[in-house]
Amino acid sequence: MRDAFHEELDALSDQMVEMTRLVHSAVARATTALLDADLGLAESVISADDQIDSLQHDLEERAYQLLARQQPVATDLRIIVAGLRMSADLERMGDLARHLALVARMRYPTSAIPADIRASIAQMGQVAGRIVLKAGSVIANKDVQVALELEKDDDEMDALHRQLFRLLLDDHWQHGIESAIDITLIGRYYERFADHAVSVARRVVYLVTGEHNHSPNGAEQAVVG
Amino acid sequence: MRDAFHEELDALSDQMVEMTRLVHSAVARATTALLDADLGLAESVISADDQIDSLQHDLEERAYQLLARQQPVATDLRIIVAGLRMSADLERMGDLARHLALVARMRYPTSAIPADIRASIAQMGQVAGRIVLKAGSVIANKDVQVALELEKDDDEMDALHRQLFRLLLDDHWQHGIESAIDITLIGRYYERFADHAVSVARRVVYLVTGEHNHSPNGAEQAVVG
Repeated sequence: MRDAFHEELDALSDQMVEMTRLVHSAVARATTALLDADLGLAESVISADDQIDSLQHDLEERAYQLLARQQPVATDLRIIVAGLRMSADLERMGDLARHLALVARMRYPTSAIPADIRASIAQMGQVAGRIVLKAGSVIANKDVQVALELEKDDDEMDALHRQLFRLLLDDHWQHGIESAIDITLIGRYYERFADHAVSVARRVVYLVTGEHNHSPNGAEQAVVG
Repeated sequence: MRDAFHEELDALSDQMVEMTRLVHSAVARATTALLDADLGLAESVISADDQIDSLQHDLEERAYQLLARQQPVATDLRIIVAGLRMSADLERMGDLARHLALVARMRYPTSAIPADIRASIAQMGQVAGRIVLKAGSVIANKDVQVALELEKDDDEMDALHRQLFRLLLDDHWQHGIESAIDITLIGRYYERFADHAVSVARRVVYLVTGEHNHSPNGAEQAVVG
């Protein structure tokens, strides 16, 4: 049986898993909104971001209460502080999904995504969805194996991001500067989304194994041009 | 006289101020490296980022020790947890300066900045430098007035960022897609740099006044196109 303190820790973890579900829904809908120029869907992502932010604030406040009342040390302390950082990463992933939706809304009724790069963006959206679901699973089950899979998904995202730049720099790019700007930013949002998921997973791995898999700062690659 | 605990809190604060100095130096040098295509300067920013990361790790560890040994509550607890978040913002600002330097290095011996947007980038670099110095001053002196000035600097950065998009979308843009991608990302890095400084300042304001100036999530505006 878990004592009251550890039940509260479990509740924090459950709330982060709930955040991953909302963020998953947001990035999946934002991707569809981009591909299909679906204004209603874009609006729904934009307005739903408040709910993610509010879950994060609530989680932060509960973590403070736990720290102040229970005065945890050692692993329990590290779990709570890691939870604060992980929830900030998840909140940021929600912001990035919202940014994608903002681009979709701005270009409506046109799709921001030219036909010849639809496949790339669809794939980036799929990897983003998969990676946040895995982050949820890593949080829920403290599963180091899934965390390693998630690193591979991030490698795939980086490869897709590089491919996107190749398409942009192709001599046959015919969609002009405005579209190139949109696609550059969209690519950056997906890449950062995946980086934050990696950061979440690495914090769990560190709590479980006591070992840093990689530096969290190494998550991001510069892949311009 | 300050007791040992509050002296340790002061030391955390001093270390964050030291981080703002290093980040200031990084973004100033990265801007010059971009404008002058100065490879040596770009390399120096890239390699100096480790020092910022290591200060942040050290600060994080000291914050843990303080939490575990001193079991602070109320304001003291909030100061330490806010310090963890602020140091993460500062570390990220260092990463963004490094990203700027990576673009400078990638385009060497050419400057990544076409002549007709040099003035804009130089101004963004100046605002970035000013904003991080003010963040340092806010941390050091808990000065709410400077925090408000810093919000204005961030508005200026957003205006410069919008201007940059106008220049990119001007019919006379003659520097091609690759340069447009570079400039889009460079603009984004400066804008995010300023957002993190705002976030740092707002946390201090909240600790001092107990009031959120704005939602930290509102710091970032989408200014595409």
